Amino acid sequence: MDKETQTNPSDTTGKPIRCKAAICKNPEEALVIEEIEVAPPQAWEVRIKILCTSLCHSDVTFWKMQKPFGIFPTIFGHEAVGVVESVGEFVEEVKKGDIVVPVFLANCEDCKDCKSEKSNICSKIPFSVNPGMPRSGSSRFRDSNGDVINHFLFVSSFSEYTVVDIIHLVKITEPIPVDKACLLSCGISTGVGAATKIAKVEKGSTVAIFGLGAVGLAVAVGARMSGASKIIGVDLNPEKAKIAKKFGITDFVNPKDCGEKPIGEVIAEMTEGGADYCFECIGLANVMADAFSSCRPGWGKTVILGVEVHGAPISVNSLEILRGKSIAGSLFGGIKAKSDIPRLAKMYLDKEIQLDEFITHEVGFDDINKAFDLLLQGKSLRCLIWMDR
Amino acid sequence: MDKETQTNPSDTTGKPIRCKAAICKNPEEALVIEEIEVAPPQAWEVRIKILCTSLCHSDVTFWKMQKPFGIFPTIFGHEAVGVVESVGEFVEEVKKGDIVVPVFLANCEDCKDCKSEKSNICSKIPFSVNPGMPRSGSSRFRDSNGDVINHFLFVSSFSEYTVVDIIHLVKITEPIPVDKACLLSCGISTGVGAATKIAKVEKGSTVAIFGLGAVGLAVAVGARMSGASKIIGVDLNPEKAKIAKKFGITDFVNPKDCGEKPIGEVIAEMTEGGADYCFECIGLANVMADAFSSCRPGWGKTVILGVEVHGAPISVNSLEILRGKSIAGSLFGGIKAKSDIPRLAKMYLDKEIQLDEFITHEVGFDDINKAFDLLLQGKSLRCLIWMDR
Repeated sequence: MDKETQTNPSDTTGKPIRCKAAICKNPEEALVIEEIEVAPPQAWEVRIKILCTSLCHSDVTFWKMQKPFGIFPTIFGHEAVGVVESVGEFVEEVKKGDIVVPVFLANCEDCKDCKSEKSNICSKIPFSVNPGMPRSGSSRFRDSNGDVINHFLFVSSFSEYTVVDIIHLVKITEPIPVDKACLLSCGISTGVGAATKIAKVEKGSTVAIFGLGAVGLAVAVGARMSGASKIIGVDLNPEKAKIAKKFGITDFVNPKDCGEKPIGEVIAEMTEGGADYCFECIGLANVMADAFSSCRPGWGKTVILGVEVHGAPISVNSLEILRGKSIAGSLFGGIKAKSDIPRLAKMYLDKEIQLDEFITHEVGFDDINKAFDLLLQGKSLRCLIWMDR
Repeated sequence: MDKETQTNPSDTTGKPIRCKAAICKNPEEALVIEEIEVAPPQAWEVRIKILCTSLCHSDVTFWKMQKPFGIFPTIFGHEAVGVVESVGEFVEEVKKGDIVVPVFLANCEDCKDCKSEKSNICSKIPFSVNPGMPRSGSSRFRDSNGDVINHFLFVSSFSEYTVVDIIHLVKITEPIPVDKACLLSCGISTGVGAATKIAKVEKGSTVAIFGLGAVGLAVAVGARMSGASKIIGVDLNPEKAKIAKKFGITDFVNPKDCGEKPIGEVIAEMTEGGADYCFECIGLANVMADAFSSCRPGWGKTVILGVEVHGAPISVNSLEILRGKSIAGSLFGGIKAKSDIPRLAKMYLDKEIQLDEFITHEVGFDDINKAFDLLLQGKSLRCLIWMDR
């Protein structure tokens, strides 16, 4: 297939597409942009042309993961927006030309979990870190030698084209700009959802957020929307103090400035005994324990959003939990993609939710490694990666 | 004061009372019944004549606790019912002759926690294991040498007379038999409350209960009242299988019979992927982890009722919690003593809640050590100790 054909998507249906992808061959190595072949979508699958994608901390977590836990070569990326290029058998929900947001968490809308208000963990296709497509397990990506390249989180958006199962796609009909739609694909929805759907922050309540990356700041956005009276941001990076204010953080605490005093005591003093809701947005077991110790006896709830980067267990004082505290986990902030993402898009258009400020950097696809550098240096919240620039 | 005077409470107001108490002088030693002196109640305090008391696992936990954590000599006992003998200054809520149930957890009905529906952990007098009275810290008990004997959990019911702060007393006006009122003082209320107030078990849901002592079986009573469709009891004691049925347990699992299969897998197979609600009623960190692993991804909630006997932290898989599971602690099952205990008493009279079957043994005060033996051997649920027999 020549270059000419690629640029005319109408001719590619049912055929492999050759395009550029940013491949990660080994843990912690810079991505390499190479030509790959993307197979046509099989039953229940959709091939999409990525418009823009952004780098999320979870990409970096898996990028750092050594073999055999880390799976390479891989096409990372799971926060994106695209246009449907072609659809496989049985796909009726979207058609060529539709704007879609891929999501790492399935939402069949038909299983016990999807039908329950209490869960967003689809049980038809459970969450997993699978190197292939969710139903068949096989890959749609081949490199120029014909060797398989692995998928990542059922999205793999660091490619001009990717194939995503319909169960992992959300059709966007709201006239939201594509870069803002991209943000709803993972991190920002996770943070807003954790505050509004998992913690259910109430008017007048106090909140402490551990880790002020995009997810943590999105928790602040959700907490502010919910009427929290005090939103404390906790981060080791002093530069976060200023930017945090834009997202509704009312008080900033740098644990480095607290001397010997445990952070739980610092938060307790600021909140008359502990925050009503604490959020761990980093993924470190000791920070999870700090968050738990910072929440109020009686009803303090700690919400875990971060994936523990070393796989360490969460360990909390057993007497403290008896004093009426609780811990809840949140994958994707309790968001049910197919209903909640369109709702969040509408909220953005109605100016009820803040998204623009999360985009701190934008690069072209060829500069994708800059996005990694910026995130690793703590300089970016979201760096958009535009495929056509 | 002679024996004659003691039996006429009208003459004792404002004076010390000499009476019998079961004193624990050293950890794990048999209690010794001796004559002690019980001082008159001070401000906010009430002196009560214990009618009957029962032995709860928490008494045994502290009885086993070595010094310096364990505090000796002590008068144990915190599950009881009594009659008001006299009241101290400012006490208006009860008067001489009232039937009262003492409780280890304060309920001022006025603090932020007591006023909130979300908490039962009174912040006016927080839960603590204090050797004295809650407000002054001093003891009302002296032995025959005039030496101080310590209080336990603000109740110390293994004595013919004790002094309890009004914040730790519930007046019983419902015509419930005193032995049944005694059961509502701690364990049974804790189990029923954990199911109905902390977990909020719904109709049709599945429940797994780890540890089928009185508290675990009371969880089953609460779960059955709430309409749970499957109530799995987990216990290492095969004799529990039969008695469990009386309390609504539909399925019994003895982990010893499960071979190499982890209990979480066993429960998952019995409940289509995990129980909706798991309850840890023993107080062992590894059982807490088992309970957590047995609850369903998506919305499975683990409620911790047991006080970890070694003070070990709760440790759970951090990825599992991200799959939508949660853990909540429950001291006294979320029960607010002053409003919930009268409500439970009324439910008993209306035959909505089962209490009688919990009383498996009854002894006179002089045989109090038999109550310990029966509980340690796993033979009793509740052994009532009658002060006048």
